[in-house]
Amino acid sequence: MLYPKSLESLIENLKKLPGVGQKTAERYALSILGLEMDEVSDLAEAIIELKAKIKNCRKCGNLSEDDLCAICQDELRDSSIICVVANTTDTIAMEKTENYHGTYHVLNGLISPSKGVLPDDLNIKSLKERLNDGVEEVIIATNLTVEGDTTSLYLSKLIAMENPEVKVTRIAHGLPVGGHLDYADDLTIIKALEGRFKI
Amino acid sequence: MLYPKSLESLIENLKKLPGVGQKTAERYALSILGLEMDEVSDLAEAIIELKAKIKNCRKCGNLSEDDLCAICQDELRDSSIICVVANTTDTIAMEKTENYHGTYHVLNGLISPSKGVLPDDLNIKSLKERLNDGVEEVIIATNLTVEGDTTSLYLSKLIAMENPEVKVTRIAHGLPVGGHLDYADDLTIIKALEGRFKI
Repeated sequence: MLYPKSLESLIENLKKLPGVGQKTAERYALSILGLEMDEVSDLAEAIIELKAKIKNCRKCGNLSEDDLCAICQDELRDSSIICVVANTTDTIAMEKTENYHGTYHVLNGLISPSKGVLPDDLNIKSLKERLNDGVEEVIIATNLTVEGDTTSLYLSKLIAMENPEVKVTRIAHGLPVGGHLDYADDLTIIKALEGRFKI
Repeated sequence: MLYPKSLESLIENLKKLPGVGQKTAERYALSILGLEMDEVSDLAEAIIELKAKIKNCRKCGNLSEDDLCAICQDELRDSSIICVVANTTDTIAMEKTENYHGTYHVLNGLISPSKGVLPDDLNIKSLKERLNDGVEEVIIATNLTVEGDTTSLYLSKLIAMENPEVKVTRIAHGLPVGGHLDYADDLTIIKALEGRFKI
């Protein structure tokens, strides 16, 4: 014998979570067994509700329960600046700094021909529509990877062609705060040198 | 804004799993959002089913969907030997070796006065009943901790008093296979020396 069937079935289901293997799934399943019945039904309900309620914001593609996400609905945000990010998690990281007060545009991916992701698969069409709406600057905040660079290049050319009045910028890459030169990788050092400024 | 409400709620629920903090819960929640609807409902159903179906085996205390667990139902197992373990996970570890063919008795805990766990809180009463049923040997397979030792001592005294004909043994503690003396802790070395045998 190994585990009873319903335990085995939950373990198999939990293994679909990222980075969860057999041992971790066993641990989670046994801990779920140890929860109170109402906690367990809360968990199951939260899983179903999430999938049923969450959709992408019609305007910026961010996750939202409403037609427009909380940021797009917020009239205090500066809608003349759009920060383009790859995923919702990136907007959360930016929001946590409480330093950015513009709006976002979530691409839900990056251009990657090798993975078969082309510009048409991303949330780019609605970005083009937004540009005619008094936007002054688009900040591209994609990662410094091949995909991130490709996407950044594609977007900057597209905007330069169709909306040349819009300024396109990209976030700076360089040494992180508290980072040491001797631990940094080559590309980070090259980017830090490229981005040097007069003091 | 941070996450939409239903996402936030799932994240809070996932944080009840052992070792899952904010970051991991966010990662799990977003990956659940990326699953297909039928996978999501499978997961939610598996969670509810587990709690509804799994109970403790009437005889040995192991997890089971039936009144008796698969091992207690198996007539090929040697019911004259009982291996006493703290938790279901311990029986799984033993079963994976495919080397033990007796039965189990799952205490569902260990005696720990400091945590308020007394013998009456454990699955000991049904063990006493089983001892009159042709049992020849009880193997105590608790860990080498204060709780494990206390439980082992308690059980051995109890059995010696009420069923002196039953042999009580404890699994050996010593160097693990492939373990090096210079990496082993003091207690393991002491136990390995105590348990030395003639070659």
